[in-house]
Amino acid sequence: MANEGAAFADALQAAQEAGFAEADPTLDITGGDSGHKLAILAGLAFGARVLHGEIPTEGIEQVDPRDIQYARNFGYVIRPLAIAERLEGGALDLRVHPALVPEGDPLAHVDGALNAVAIQGEMVGPSFLSGLGAGAGPTATSVAGDIIDIAKNSLAGAPVRTWNLPSESDQKIQAIADLSSRYYLRFSVRDDSGVLAALSGKLGDSGISIEQMVQHVDAGDEGTASIAMLTHHAREGDVRASLAAIDATDLTTAPTHLIRIVE
Amino acid sequence: MANEGAAFADALQAAQEAGFAEADPTLDITGGDSGHKLAILAGLAFGARVLHGEIPTEGIEQVDPRDIQYARNFGYVIRPLAIAERLEGGALDLRVHPALVPEGDPLAHVDGALNAVAIQGEMVGPSFLSGLGAGAGPTATSVAGDIIDIAKNSLAGAPVRTWNLPSESDQKIQAIADLSSRYYLRFSVRDDSGVLAALSGKLGDSGISIEQMVQHVDAGDEGTASIAMLTHHAREGDVRASLAAIDATDLTTAPTHLIRIVE
Repeated sequence: MANEGAAFADALQAAQEAGFAEADPTLDITGGDSGHKLAILAGLAFGARVLHGEIPTEGIEQVDPRDIQYARNFGYVIRPLAIAERLEGGALDLRVHPALVPEGDPLAHVDGALNAVAIQGEMVGPSFLSGLGAGAGPTATSVAGDIIDIAKNSLAGAPVRTWNLPSESDQKIQAIADLSSRYYLRFSVRDDSGVLAALSGKLGDSGISIEQMVQHVDAGDEGTASIAMLTHHAREGDVRASLAAIDATDLTTAPTHLIRIVE
Repeated sequence: MANEGAAFADALQAAQEAGFAEADPTLDITGGDSGHKLAILAGLAFGARVLHGEIPTEGIEQVDPRDIQYARNFGYVIRPLAIAERLEGGALDLRVHPALVPEGDPLAHVDGALNAVAIQGEMVGPSFLSGLGAGAGPTATSVAGDIIDIAKNSLAGAPVRTWNLPSESDQKIQAIADLSSRYYLRFSVRDDSGVLAALSGKLGDSGISIEQMVQHVDAGDEGTASIAMLTHHAREGDVRASLAAIDATDLTTAPTHLIRIVE
C-alpha cells in the first residue's frame, strides 16, 4: 500500500485477489490477526499469560496516502508493527499499530507479502528474520513442515515438544497512556496566519516539543491546510489530552491524526 | 573493512582486538572457516556428503581498497559469501569467495560482526536471517542455548534429534570453470592509447562482452592506469583463459584481478 499510494479499497482488493488478504479481511486490517500472534509470542518469549483483548491494537484503516507521503518526506516509511518488550520495571509494553520506521531500518524494506521478526536479545544482540507471510506456497510449506516435524518426532518416540507455557498469570501490561514515544501528528487547520503559532503554543504548554514541521495548503479544500510534525519523546496520555483540547477549539477542521514513531 | 577502506592489516588487527577475528585468523581470511560451515550446510540442505576441501574457496586477502571503491561506483558492495545451490541437472554449485553484491540486496547491509543466511526455497520463496556472528555474548548464548536444548530433550526422554545426514556419497560438484557468472575485472595497464581497444578486442574474441567500464590513471605509478569493468554472463573457464592470454602480453603490468558478481 505504502509503495503505490493506492487508495485503500483498491489496495485491499488487489491483496485479496493475490491471495494475501483473507476473503473477510477484518482481522488483517484492524490488527486483530497481529494481536492474536503477539499474545502467543509474548507467552513464548516472556512466559506471560496475555489475552489478545488486553493488547492496545490499532489497524491500518486510518492511514491516509497523505501520511505515507509526509512520512517519506521526513525520512520514514509507515509499517504495521506488533511490538512486545519487557520494560525495566518488569511490565510488558505490548501494542499493535502502524508506525513510522526510519528508511534505513531493515523493517522499512519489508514489503509486499514479506513478514519479518526483529528480535533484540540481552546477550545475543539484534536478530532479524524475514520471509513470505502469505500466499499458497509459503503457507502450505509451513503447515506441511510442522506436520512432518510432529510425525518424525512421534516415530522417534519423542514426546510432543514442551514449550515455555505462560506462567505469570498477573502480568502487568503498560497502559498505552504511559507509553513514552515520539509521534507523527497531522493537523487539519484553517489556512490562516496565527493558527500555527496557536497550535505550537498549546503543544508547548503541555510539554510537547516539536522536532520537525511542514505546512501545506490543501489542494482540494479551499481555505484549509495540513500541518505535519514530528515530536520529541512525550508521554502518550499527555499528547492525547493536548490533541483533544486542540481539536475542541476551532483551530482544527478535522480530528488530528497521530501515528507513533518506532526506531 | 569495506566500510572504511582501511588497509587490510589495520582492519584485521581491529577485528582481532574486538574479539571478532581469531588470534590465528588464517581460517577467517582464507575462507576456510566458511568452507567448513558450507560443507555442513550442504549436507543438511541437500543430503550431500561434501568435504570442505572439495569446495572452491577464495579468501578476502586479495580484495584491494581500489576494488571496494570501483564496486561502489558501479552500485555494488563486496561481501564474503558461501554459496550452495542445487543446479537443474542435479549437480551442486558450491563456492566460497568475496563477491560484488548489489547495494539494494539485504546481504549488502550485513556489516560489522553481523552474519546472514539468505535462503531461496522452491515453495517457500526467499527467507533471510541475520544476527551477530562473533563476540563473547552472542557466541556464549548460542553454545548455552544448544546445551539447554539437549538437556531439556534428555529430561523429557526424547532421543537426540535426528538430522537429515548426508546420504548421497557421490554428489557431483560443479567445477568452478563451468560456472556461469557475471564478473568484475580490474586490469593494470600501461597508460597508452590503444591499450583499451586491444583489451576489448581480446575479450570480445573470447566471447566475453563488457557491460560497463571505467578507466583511471593510477595516482601513484607513473605511466600506468587501471581499467575496471563488469562483464555480462560468461563461462568462468573462458574468462580465465582469456585473462591468462591477456596477462601474457605486455598490455597488462600486473595480473588482472577477477571478482564474481552475485545477484
